[in-house]
Amino acid sequence: MEDKLLQTIISKNDTKIVLVVADGLGGLPDPETSLTELETACTPNLDRLAQTGSSGLSVPIGYGVTPGSGPSHLALFGYDPIQNLIGRGILEASGIDFDLAPEDLAARGNFATLKDGLIVDRRAGRISTEENQRLCAILSKEIKEIDGVKIIIQTVKEHRFVVIFRGKEMAEGLSENDPEKEGLAPLQIESLRSESRFAAEISNKFVALVTEVLKTEKANYPLLRGFAKKPNLPSFDQKYFLRAAAIASYPMYRGLARLVGMDVLLTGEKIADELKTLKDNFSNFNFFYLHIKKTDSYGEDGNFAAKVKVIEEVDLAVGEIEKMRPDVIAVTADHSTPALLSGHSWHPNPFLLASKHAMPDNLSGFSERECRKGSFGVFPATEIMPLLLAHSLRLKKFGA
Amino acid sequence: MEDKLLQTIISKNDTKIVLVVADGLGGLPDPETSLTELETACTPNLDRLAQTGSSGLSVPIGYGVTPGSGPSHLALFGYDPIQNLIGRGILEASGIDFDLAPEDLAARGNFATLKDGLIVDRRAGRISTEENQRLCAILSKEIKEIDGVKIIIQTVKEHRFVVIFRGKEMAEGLSENDPEKEGLAPLQIESLRSESRFAAEISNKFVALVTEVLKTEKANYPLLRGFAKKPNLPSFDQKYFLRAAAIASYPMYRGLARLVGMDVLLTGEKIADELKTLKDNFSNFNFFYLHIKKTDSYGEDGNFAAKVKVIEEVDLAVGEIEKMRPDVIAVTADHSTPALLSGHSWHPNPFLLASKHAMPDNLSGFSERECRKGSFGVFPATEIMPLLLAHSLRLKKFGA
Repeated sequence: MEDKLLQTIISKNDTKIVLVVADGLGGLPDPETSLTELETACTPNLDRLAQTGSSGLSVPIGYGVTPGSGPSHLALFGYDPIQNLIGRGILEASGIDFDLAPEDLAARGNFATLKDGLIVDRRAGRISTEENQRLCAILSKEIKEIDGVKIIIQTVKEHRFVVIFRGKEMAEGLSENDPEKEGLAPLQIESLRSESRFAAEISNKFVALVTEVLKTEKANYPLLRGFAKKPNLPSFDQKYFLRAAAIASYPMYRGLARLVGMDVLLTGEKIADELKTLKDNFSNFNFFYLHIKKTDSYGEDGNFAAKVKVIEEVDLAVGEIEKMRPDVIAVTADHSTPALLSGHSWHPNPFLLASKHAMPDNLSGFSERECRKGSFGVFPATEIMPLLLAHSLRLKKFGA
Repeated sequence: MEDKLLQTIISKNDTKIVLVVADGLGGLPDPETSLTELETACTPNLDRLAQTGSSGLSVPIGYGVTPGSGPSHLALFGYDPIQNLIGRGILEASGIDFDLAPEDLAARGNFATLKDGLIVDRRAGRISTEENQRLCAILSKEIKEIDGVKIIIQTVKEHRFVVIFRGKEMAEGLSENDPEKEGLAPLQIESLRSESRFAAEISNKFVALVTEVLKTEKANYPLLRGFAKKPNLPSFDQKYFLRAAAIASYPMYRGLARLVGMDVLLTGEKIADELKTLKDNFSNFNFFYLHIKKTDSYGEDGNFAAKVKVIEEVDLAVGEIEKMRPDVIAVTADHSTPALLSGHSWHPNPFLLASKHAMPDNLSGFSERECRKGSFGVFPATEIMPLLLAHSLRLKKFGA
């Protein structure tokens, strides 16, 4: 839905929406059984809701497009995922729960090894996270500021770190210094737009300082990529009048929720922890984004059976959520991750919406192949938020 | 899919795609049997692929829009059919396998009869093709060039010819000289844009010269319509990184394929000839557009039974194509041509995609009414190319 239209019909009320995102839920059939992960799993709660609720297949970005988690979540949250591309540096910073300020320019870093002017190892032997933490501690002590720009360096994992340049004049539009192949010299960081000249200067000075500080280390060179600022998105409160909370155990999803102004709740790693967080906070918000990661993780691992088991846990969780009596429950995914492909895919997502105002589709169960027969048909994921708002009676009549 | 998005995710590989276009495939039910042409035909191969592959109904231009072959093919090939309208002159020139240069301005011509300053017969008694060839030979000898613009005159059929004005200053934007009714005087060709003044002058000089040369003939006047230049479309190679070949027995479809930079292969009139061409060239390309005309021809004739028979031939051909083991086979149409309407129609096209990465839709067969239950739903024909690219693993992940 266009923002302009939404603004003319959006209204407030106190009903509650729970959006359950089982990451990478959709799959492809096991050649032996001809059943997908979702079709194989025993899901009595989801199957019952597919009878009494409305379903469809949602397309995150476009036909045939395999989305990353950033754009697919933006689409789910109702933001144009192509217009609002989230830079790599921002995703990496979000992924370590770093709270980005509007003036921050973030970049992903690799600790690499430079020898005789050439990058001989882009990952410095894939150093340990502990070694990375040691290097970041040294750098944080030695490089606090460059020409008025505050420098924040944070470990991610193994050879990966994030650097945040905090300063009003730090603009987007920088090239990267990573030659992308070993045996080549690192590149200069260049400004791709006139307003990013200062940022290029600061970034190159940062690279020189790091090289100086780490000159006796194996990991003696910072390769910087994906320079980006936080996209300027209206918050859930501004866009939908929703007090929204995110319950997600993985940092990247907490970061994505933070970008759209959700309150990110402390929770544990298990689905049971997330459910408890939902229950404890149920009265404080009217929108909950509950993210379940393991469906995707096992899909990525190509572990069909383990993905099936997580789906069965999701089913039990949905049963528990029903007991809290939200007005609308939706269950879907950000993208498909078929165990057969061991990765994200372009296949549309099963989507299910339960509400007393939903058309009962009488589907025989919740699956990729049943959902395509549902009331919503095959539809863009960006329309999910309008559907949730409509079924919670938040959208007024358009026109007379 | 927007070109900008496509450019960020497109990649190359060596997998092979065969797109079978059974022109005018979709139909409407025979009132006696309540079955469409496709439902009546015995199509064991297509029915099997509708079980194991993914289907949908594709909309070429928009809901309710009956497309001509030009725009419906552009949509199939993934080009915006409304933004890239192909002028009639270009279609007519393409239809006789004429290889257009970028500077060419082409127009459709009718040989007409002028008497006492009025057009008394817009088709000069529908002269024979041989008579047309005789006149074109005379004109080609007498009119080779006007003010530096090269003139090329080619017979099409009966009273129809094509004239190509080859010269850098020949711009689009001309009115036509056809009064469209008999008993009226022909019109002056006028420039509709400032840059087409020169083209209008040359065109009017051409009309005067033809009238002079043919003054003793019955067919003594050229009515010119649809002045157009070749649209400037990126080629399949540029847009999709595909080495694309066209196998089509009718000139117009060869011309359309040429406009998007496909290699147009020599082939015969029968489906068997086209299959042989496919087989002989299978190793040389990674995309094949295989066009079957007779489904449409019999639809246009209102010949339900003959259309059914051709569909059965298409089914056999698809079986043969499967044996060549392409990675993706798609079977669809450019537009529907129900025998009941004896013409093109607005009804969406049955679309079927077979690939090991496709969701098996388990449809009970390949037909208009089964396809609407498929994974792709009812979707724009311009999304067919992205789907073919995705299923041949040519589209990288979008965003992180």
